[in-house]
Amino acid sequence: MIIVLKKNAGEKEVDNIRKKVETLGLGIHVSKGEERTIIGVIGDESIIRNQPLAALPCVEKVMPILKPYKLVSREFKPENSVIDLDGVAIGGNKIAVIAGPCSVESADSLLEIATGVQQAGATCLRGGAFKPRTSPYAFQGLGEEGLKYLAEARQKTGLKVITELMDPRDTELLVKYADVIQIGARNMQNFRLLTEVGQHKKPVLLKRGMSSTIKELLMSAEYIMSQGNYNVILCERGIRTFEDYTRNTLDLSAIPVIKELSHLPVVVDPSHAVGRWELVLPMTKAAIAAGADGLMIEVHNDPGNALSDGTQSLLPAKFANLMNEIKTVAAAVGREI
Amino acid sequence: MIIVLKKNAGEKEVDNIRKKVETLGLGIHVSKGEERTIIGVIGDESIIRNQPLAALPCVEKVMPILKPYKLVSREFKPENSVIDLDGVAIGGNKIAVIAGPCSVESADSLLEIATGVQQAGATCLRGGAFKPRTSPYAFQGLGEEGLKYLAEARQKTGLKVITELMDPRDTELLVKYADVIQIGARNMQNFRLLTEVGQHKKPVLLKRGMSSTIKELLMSAEYIMSQGNYNVILCERGIRTFEDYTRNTLDLSAIPVIKELSHLPVVVDPSHAVGRWELVLPMTKAAIAAGADGLMIEVHNDPGNALSDGTQSLLPAKFANLMNEIKTVAAAVGREI
Amino acid sequence: MIIVLKKNAGEKEVDNIRKKVETLGLGIHVSKGEERTIIGVIGDESIIRNQPLAALPCVEKVMPILKPYKLVSREFKPENSVIDLDGVAIGGNKIAVIAGPCSVESADSLLEIATGVQQAGATCLRGGAFKPRTSPYAFQGLGEEGLKYLAEARQKTGLKVITELMDPRDTELLVKYADVIQIGARNMQNFRLLTEVGQHKKPVLLKRGMSSTIKELLMSAEYIMSQGNYNVILCERGIRTFEDYTRNTLDLSAIPVIKELSHLPVVVDPSHAVGRWELVLPMTKAAIAAGADGLMIEVHNDPGNALSDGTQSLLPAKFANLMNEIKTVAAAVGREI
Amino acid sequence: MIIVLKKNAGEKEVDNIRKKVETLGLGIHVSKGEERTIIGVIGDESIIRNQPLAALPCVEKVMPILKPYKLVSREFKPENSVIDLDGVAIGGNKIAVIAGPCSVESADSLLEIATGVQQAGATCLRGGAFKPRTSPYAFQGLGEEGLKYLAEARQKTGLKVITELMDPRDTELLVKYADVIQIGARNMQNFRLLTEVGQHKKPVLLKRGMSSTIKELLMSAEYIMSQGNYNVILCERGIRTFEDYTRNTLDLSAIPVIKELSHLPVVVDPSHAVGRWELVLPMTKAAIAAGADGLMIEVHNDPGNALSDGTQSLLPAKFANLMNEIKTVAAAVGREI
Repeated sequence: MIIVLKKNAGEKEVDNIRKKVETLGLGIHVSKGEERTIIGVIGDESIIRNQPLAALPCVEKVMPILKPYKLVSREFKPENSVIDLDGVAIGGNKIAVIAGPCSVESADSLLEIATGVQQAGATCLRGGAFKPRTSPYAFQGLGEEGLKYLAEARQKTGLKVITELMDPRDTELLVKYADVIQIGARNMQNFRLLTEVGQHKKPVLLKRGMSSTIKELLMSAEYIMSQGNYNVILCERGIRTFEDYTRNTLDLSAIPVIKELSHLPVVVDPSHAVGRWELVLPMTKAAIAAGADGLMIEVHNDPGNALSDGTQSLLPAKFANLMNEIKTVAAAVGREI
Repeated sequence: MIIVLKKNAGEKEVDNIRKKVETLGLGIHVSKGEERTIIGVIGDESIIRNQPLAALPCVEKVMPILKPYKLVSREFKPENSVIDLDGVAIGGNKIAVIAGPCSVESADSLLEIATGVQQAGATCLRGGAFKPRTSPYAFQGLGEEGLKYLAEARQKTGLKVITELMDPRDTELLVKYADVIQIGARNMQNFRLLTEVGQHKKPVLLKRGMSSTIKELLMSAEYIMSQGNYNVILCERGIRTFEDYTRNTLDLSAIPVIKELSHLPVVVDPSHAVGRWELVLPMTKAAIAAGADGLMIEVHNDPGNALSDGTQSLLPAKFANLMNEIKTVAAAVGREI
Repeated sequence: MIIVLKKNAGEKEVDNIRKKVETLGLGIHVSKGEERTIIGVIGDESIIRNQPLAALPCVEKVMPILKPYKLVSREFKPENSVIDLDGVAIGGNKIAVIAGPCSVESADSLLEIATGVQQAGATCLRGGAFKPRTSPYAFQGLGEEGLKYLAEARQKTGLKVITELMDPRDTELLVKYADVIQIGARNMQNFRLLTEVGQHKKPVLLKRGMSSTIKELLMSAEYIMSQGNYNVILCERGIRTFEDYTRNTLDLSAIPVIKELSHLPVVVDPSHAVGRWELVLPMTKAAIAAGADGLMIEVHNDPGNALSDGTQSLLPAKFANLMNEIKTVAAAVGREI
Repeated sequence: MIIVLKKNAGEKEVDNIRKKVETLGLGIHVSKGEERTIIGVIGDESIIRNQPLAALPCVEKVMPILKPYKLVSREFKPENSVIDLDGVAIGGNKIAVIAGPCSVESADSLLEIATGVQQAGATCLRGGAFKPRTSPYAFQGLGEEGLKYLAEARQKTGLKVITELMDPRDTELLVKYADVIQIGARNMQNFRLLTEVGQHKKPVLLKRGMSSTIKELLMSAEYIMSQGNYNVILCERGIRTFEDYTRNTLDLSAIPVIKELSHLPVVVDPSHAVGRWELVLPMTKAAIAAGADGLMIEVHNDPGNALSDGTQSLLPAKFANLMNEIKTVAAAVGREI
């Protein structure tokens, strides 16, 4: 850690910082330039990272040297992590395709969609039983009933089930029914939920918050891993910007950035990012080309009557076409679907 | 609701929409222009608001006419709401000042700070017992022990206590100890938490999410009110922008905008917005001038050793000076401190 | 155009708007709902688009029906525009690759880079002679001398030359030396510059402003086209967001969106978007997969000593490798390099 | 400047950097920690600031110690600058009020508005003769005719005239007619325009770009000052964020931040920031409370028929009321109007 002192800081201020740092078992190196005195802290940076040194009146700025996360970092684990969903791997050479409706609406419609996406080549089924909706008056999901329909669809199609957890009190329920627990964008910094899923071994798909930096996403993954659950899959789903033609702005550069910083696999959700089904196909191709390990795509058998997110859902036939078109793109970057 | 059809849409498409709308018990008015056919939906907009009409291939865009919230709106309740905290009112002519440390760290330091801010004129004490921290390795709060210290400080100083709820399982605990339950920025769209606090009568201070629009803030307040709890106080605490000199960008225009759209009181937290104690005083004055009903200010007796947010905390003496300086500003806009 | 009146608006307010609209030669259709009175304006929307109707106290909001641009729109010209640079086409099946240094630094280094990128398969040479630099103390470009070096490099390599115009007084100079005139991101709304290049037939590459919406980009293209120059190429180069790990956030969804709204070709500049050379390759592939008609990539023979943007520049050998790798991605989406 | 090397960097990499730094006449101090080797550059940072050290493969990050601007900084000139407009001072204890229409539309309407704002207490008249408009089909200003009307209004009312420069070719014209030359938000990084106005002594009001950081604003001011013109006034006019209820988000914390970093005076334009006249009064009060040295407010005698920005313009009577109400706020912070 580097501490830059204000122009007028003198010996006394340096001594104060020396004492504070030494109390923590660390040392300092002082460099007096013409313009500023700079203090380098010697020793384990994690000890001093959360100290409010910038609160001292003599300090102009504090510049950390190391990253604030450990378990998620590629420095900690150089090789890629591959998360195993009991037969379906996320993070290997084969790109995983997760498809299904935004919300589980009925047993019949779910099964129809699941059958369609399975035949087209998807290996995981998405579908919300607990739905975070902006309005209290909108459909909030079927709850446990929806989880049961998902389990039935799994049994009939062999698809792995991924569904969202919104409340720590539902964790056991989700662990029971789901193959992957999704933490939604709005809950990326719901630290209690992160701690809770960290205490199981069930794989977790952690969506990036709509205004979260990549660093914050990694810190939230660190929450889960610090509890002992290393089965974490990250998901880029678009960030909030000033552009309002698309629902969010899909940040595909997050993929190579995360690959550089972390060993965890990255899934992309183009449907939520763009918000309109017409844009899903090109952005899916782009996600693959940028290095995504998986895709999460909304499919509905009757988008015009969907209870949520119909505007961004593909019809099963369009999804089948997408699956067909993306194979060559995957091959072009040395991957398989 | 206005539905604009794509250029090539014809009679058949209009008929499809007519049928869909009539099924919902509503009617339509069709206007064929040279460039576009426009359909006005006649009847209660809330019935059709969540229908995914934009998913229909013939639809270019859907434009709602009314606001999606009701109970929070000034149209629903024209006069200002005043929330009564058992003797301290928020929303009336007197501006409420909430002050205290970011986290409760010990009984002694809390009492020292509480005594200081009470003597300077604050009427409410803030202090987190459960802390949402970006890093799992940072101080997470004292939990129930912290709540007890808050209750003791209340008993000794007469200050009302406001503290944050992070987990629905802690709701009863907070109802027991707190005078106001805070929902933090990261939990503004934690809909389970909102539903939970909506089921009590305890006043709730709802902080705006760091990338939430004013409309989304009001929708989250609607969640709480739709459960029966009308004691909601809104809080502007800075939004995330590209500017990185300040921690967040304090959006003071949110105050008159909320006053126009809603009857709920608005508190401003300049400390979290700016992130540096030197900037707190001018922004506090600006918040008052813009019409804030309350202020939430971080005060710590030893910021350089605070366990969280020391950089933005005022020393008690500086807080006393602030209280002194803001009185004339309040008077200049016809308010009292 | 749809005008929504405030709740309390009555006959008198409707009459005022009727008169105002009729003065412009248009008509109105009034629809009185239970909650709001809505006025539809009948006739050519372009006549009333710039009227400040929202300034009238009785008006709650004004909602336009049509897009504010015409010449750039796909509705105006359904087929893709292909811009011909005297033998090199931008917008056709073949993806154009523009490569070269950020700034022209010397005749020798430019020729070395130009030869390298030409051999690797690029067809256009980029290089700034006039440089927009954030600091007045940074290298500002070689001026006309730089343009001469570009012309020499063109003569020796056959590459087409693209270079930036910063000042309307330099327009004739650039028309003389360049094959394509670049309008940089910082000048996207320098309307005098747009008007100036609109008065020549020289192709223009218009970069999206770092905080400009797609609609604003199209409006700026409309400026150029409204002056008679239809040879406009759009360029996505990253937008400013809260994410600070990359220099900007590359908005690849802008490609399919622009393709939907406009007939103009779209080039992507991944180098400026990400700001770090390690990220250029994956984002180039993603741009192709998303449908880009061209690519603009920074290449330097000695990035560690470049006078500008060395951090994001590829060495010629790395560029050659990129050219090799992207061929299969282009083929996978039915395009050629 | 601090250079952090990648984990695997060794002696050879350190030597390379040493040579490069010594070539520039500077020295280095090497600190080998357990996790990283850190190099401190010793000597004048401005020599090395623009070197692309991050382009070297062994470098993880480069952290500057000093600010990149000099002449604008408070370190360079500790006391506040007061800009004298031939009798009206901006930056002193008295807050300057600049008022007038967005565009000059006719001699009569301008004079009517000018007379109104002068009687209400304004000391400067704003009005655009050259207008930057998003659409090429919108009113573009009256040009030199508009400047003449401004000069007439000055003669009759005694108000100082401030008007916008869009094109370097119009500089002499503006120098002749205006008392202050405005550089608009869209031209904040039009470096040619900045250089041009830097070569006169005429005061310049420099508006913050809609997505420019405070640092970038100061760098643009440095451009002007580095040419010799020290009469620079900065203007906060709202930044672009995701919030869409207001036209922009007024960043009032920019005022105390600029006051800390720079000696230049700061004017606030609440009209463009909020985009709706109803919000102008509270935000004007807030700007004063936050420490603004001046205000820039749009006033029109017939907003419903204004040729630009009618929605955010105050009627003269409402402006007179504003002038009356803000006096007490100014007094409350020790200032005068």
